[in-house]
Amino acid sequence: MSLIAIFVWELIGTAALILLGNGVVANVVLRKNNGYQAGTLFITFGWAFGVFTGASLAAPSGAHLNPAVTLGLTLAGESPWKDLPIYWAGQMVGAIVGAVLCWAAYKLQFDDHPEPQNTLGIFSTAPQIRNKAWNLVTEIIGTFVLVAWILLSPTIKTGTDGTPSFGNSALGYAGVSFVVLVIGISLGGPTGYAINPARDLGPRIAYAFMLPIKGKRDGDWGYSWVPVFGPLAGGALAALLYLGVHNLT
Amino acid sequence: MSLIAIFVWELIGTAALILLGNGVVANVVLRKNNGYQAGTLFITFGWAFGVFTGASLAAPSGAHLNPAVTLGLTLAGESPWKDLPIYWAGQMVGAIVGAVLCWAAYKLQFDDHPEPQNTLGIFSTAPQIRNKAWNLVTEIIGTFVLVAWILLSPTIKTGTDGTPSFGNSALGYAGVSFVVLVIGISLGGPTGYAINPARDLGPRIAYAFMLPIKGKRDGDWGYSWVPVFGPLAGGALAALLYLGVHNLT
Amino acid sequence: MSLIAIFVWELIGTAALILLGNGVVANVVLRKNNGYQAGTLFITFGWAFGVFTGASLAAPSGAHLNPAVTLGLTLAGESPWKDLPIYWAGQMVGAIVGAVLCWAAYKLQFDDHPEPQNTLGIFSTAPQIRNKAWNLVTEIIGTFVLVAWILLSPTIKTGTDGTPSFGNSALGYAGVSFVVLVIGISLGGPTGYAINPARDLGPRIAYAFMLPIKGKRDGDWGYSWVPVFGPLAGGALAALLYLGVHNLT
Amino acid sequence: MSLIAIFVWELIGTAALILLGNGVVANVVLRKNNGYQAGTLFITFGWAFGVFTGASLAAPSGAHLNPAVTLGLTLAGESPWKDLPIYWAGQMVGAIVGAVLCWAAYKLQFDDHPEPQNTLGIFSTAPQIRNKAWNLVTEIIGTFVLVAWILLSPTIKTGTDGTPSFGNSALGYAGVSFVVLVIGISLGGPTGYAINPARDLGPRIAYAFMLPIKGKRDGDWGYSWVPVFGPLAGGALAALLYLGVHNLT
Repeated sequence: MSLIAIFVWELIGTAALILLGNGVVANVVLRKNNGYQAGTLFITFGWAFGVFTGASLAAPSGAHLNPAVTLGLTLAGESPWKDLPIYWAGQMVGAIVGAVLCWAAYKLQFDDHPEPQNTLGIFSTAPQIRNKAWNLVTEIIGTFVLVAWILLSPTIKTGTDGTPSFGNSALGYAGVSFVVLVIGISLGGPTGYAINPARDLGPRIAYAFMLPIKGKRDGDWGYSWVPVFGPLAGGALAALLYLGVHNLT
Repeated sequence: MSLIAIFVWELIGTAALILLGNGVVANVVLRKNNGYQAGTLFITFGWAFGVFTGASLAAPSGAHLNPAVTLGLTLAGESPWKDLPIYWAGQMVGAIVGAVLCWAAYKLQFDDHPEPQNTLGIFSTAPQIRNKAWNLVTEIIGTFVLVAWILLSPTIKTGTDGTPSFGNSALGYAGVSFVVLVIGISLGGPTGYAINPARDLGPRIAYAFMLPIKGKRDGDWGYSWVPVFGPLAGGALAALLYLGVHNLT
Repeated sequence: MSLIAIFVWELIGTAALILLGNGVVANVVLRKNNGYQAGTLFITFGWAFGVFTGASLAAPSGAHLNPAVTLGLTLAGESPWKDLPIYWAGQMVGAIVGAVLCWAAYKLQFDDHPEPQNTLGIFSTAPQIRNKAWNLVTEIIGTFVLVAWILLSPTIKTGTDGTPSFGNSALGYAGVSFVVLVIGISLGGPTGYAINPARDLGPRIAYAFMLPIKGKRDGDWGYSWVPVFGPLAGGALAALLYLGVHNLT
Repeated sequence: MSLIAIFVWELIGTAALILLGNGVVANVVLRKNNGYQAGTLFITFGWAFGVFTGASLAAPSGAHLNPAVTLGLTLAGESPWKDLPIYWAGQMVGAIVGAVLCWAAYKLQFDDHPEPQNTLGIFSTAPQIRNKAWNLVTEIIGTFVLVAWILLSPTIKTGTDGTPSFGNSALGYAGVSFVVLVIGISLGGPTGYAINPARDLGPRIAYAFMLPIKGKRDGDWGYSWVPVFGPLAGGALAALLYLGVHNLT
């Protein structure tokens, strides 16, 4: 697969993921929406099937959509090191595009919202109790489950050109969306399950520097590195597990 | 496939979709129902699995069920122009049939409902904040995601007779219903996600001109063109994306 | 397939369906349960995945589990007339067994329940607004959707011995459970979607004549024929649709 | 398959199941979580897709994850007796590891929780109404449904080395997670559906003897044998059913 193709497919898939993932939070947080205050199960479904949509769109590039997934696959030997920066770039640009599209879809609701200070939460995660060490632990555990599942589940297959693939049926992506669903439900309580550096940092950049939301707050940069390095560490640990056990029969 | 077959299968599939989609809103809006005030997740599940049901019923015609999908597939070269008017006609007639069946299933509840002015919302969408330009943007984005997914996901296959197909297993239609689910959850807040001109205009016609609901309001014709042209524009833009990227490997 | 095998597999599958379907209502209606007042979406999920469980258990007999499905398949020429009484008998006995198992699982909660008069609703359906003609219409429409889907969706396959089959993977039964889910969500408001004579009449018999629930009410026999004949009529109409359109290409 | 491989894969799969299953309860029970008081449907989804995640991770060993499943498969002749102690050991150790990981992910919330006496419910089940005989009945019925489904559904296949397998696609595990979902929804009311001795006893041991939760209560040992022996009895009864009917055609 050409580098430009990797960039474009990861951009498209990640943009869809972030548009839909940020979108469900906008629907729940901003008043005058059909989904206003629709609850946590609603939010976790939005992210899970946002992954389904984005991942099946990005099938040609292997549908990483997540720098921690790319890192884990690369450390596991399932994706070449030379492709890693292209994957990461496509994911970051896609995340920013998705956040801008989300803002456009909810433009009237942003204008109408009486508490613009809380709008960062639509785009990026924040912990319920702020303690960077333990917040990092939570993000590491959640991402470890995700990347270990991707590496070890019988879904993953290495294509003829060395690109890992989730199979050629769209429904094959249901599996990873179920795993993202349960991570949100079961491990999303303390930190909002970023489990993906691009999912968190891309929209944070869009929010802080690009989106014309009146009265918005800053990007909470003091916390911003936790949902970047936690997921990367979790993905790396999952690669270690994979290397240790995947040939054990 | 013969034109009459296209017409009949699209009619059957769209009637099922609208019966079930209008049905869930009737269940939630009209009192003396088991699903009275059952919430937004409930509504989005009704529409999503209404799509599953209608799409698997309409498998022989490729299960468009949506003029914006037909337009997108046609512009993308996956469906012939000569079939487009037949697809649209079957979809519109099916949508009207589905709305009438929904009314029949909930006839006692309509008679009992104390606020007949709000019954239009069972059949057709309305924006939470009325601003036609931005409402159009929201409908365009939602439909763009739907049609882009249909065109680009690995599910689509062109059959031997040139008709696109979602595969021959009913479960193949789960993918598109998951995408409709997440569009409702994540992008349905501002306008109620028509994302389908027949889904909105057909039941609106049935409501305004055919159904004997006492005290009903008019068809809100001033807004009615937004959920028609927004989805068509979104479908067309998705075809452009498809043409630009689908050979990129 | 032997008649005894049909009887046993239908009995097992229908018992599982009713145990799980009655069980979710018991969980929601009876206090001192983890699912007390858990809502309508919860109930529809219980019935839908009760169908999944029962149908995949009863795969050898074609997993009808419902006299209206058997009637529709028989009228459509997909199941022999001579087997129909055995299917119905297995379904009715299974439904009674399932209702008794449900009572046993919730025995302590039944004993503790302060309003035993409302326990019939755990086992059998009742309309929200009582009007037998229109209640019949609602049941006919709901069952028509179910049986038409079973007959027309690409899932159905006739096995080498003439028995229709949903394919040999358990996941093949997810399709029919999604359809039951949406019928409950979208058409279950007015009458509680019996859509299955055995599902309604079997547990009603168990409730009225067998279960030792103190202070229980009678079997509401005046309404009891509606959820029997409505579904049978809906299944028959679906067979007519099938015969009219299934060769249309 | 080597004994060490069985041990490792069962450990990994069960650890994932318990991390995610205990995690959803922690999310709902402990305040300052995004899922605080998110409801019973939320909890049942967490356990169901925890099973999906754990079972697809443990595919190489046949994904028992549950001593009652291993017992049922062994009695049914689908798993060798000599492997049974290894399966059970891997499951118990995995369950303890999962409970510790859950505690780490929610460490800040445990520290903040004002009622530490109720934290046992995050890890192990307790009945709503305490009556050991009838609580046993409920656990037997729930586990019977689970193990009968695993044995009888068309999903199970015996691999070339005698190990039963759920097929080699991750999505094959969706079936068993749907069954666990409906058991939770429909039979989880009275006792919290342990339906798995390792799921209940492992975290109970972790809670009582290992986790540094201030103000925690004891392990409720008087009840602890019910969710161990009930599931084992249910699994054994399911094996009897399987032996009686599985060749009936």
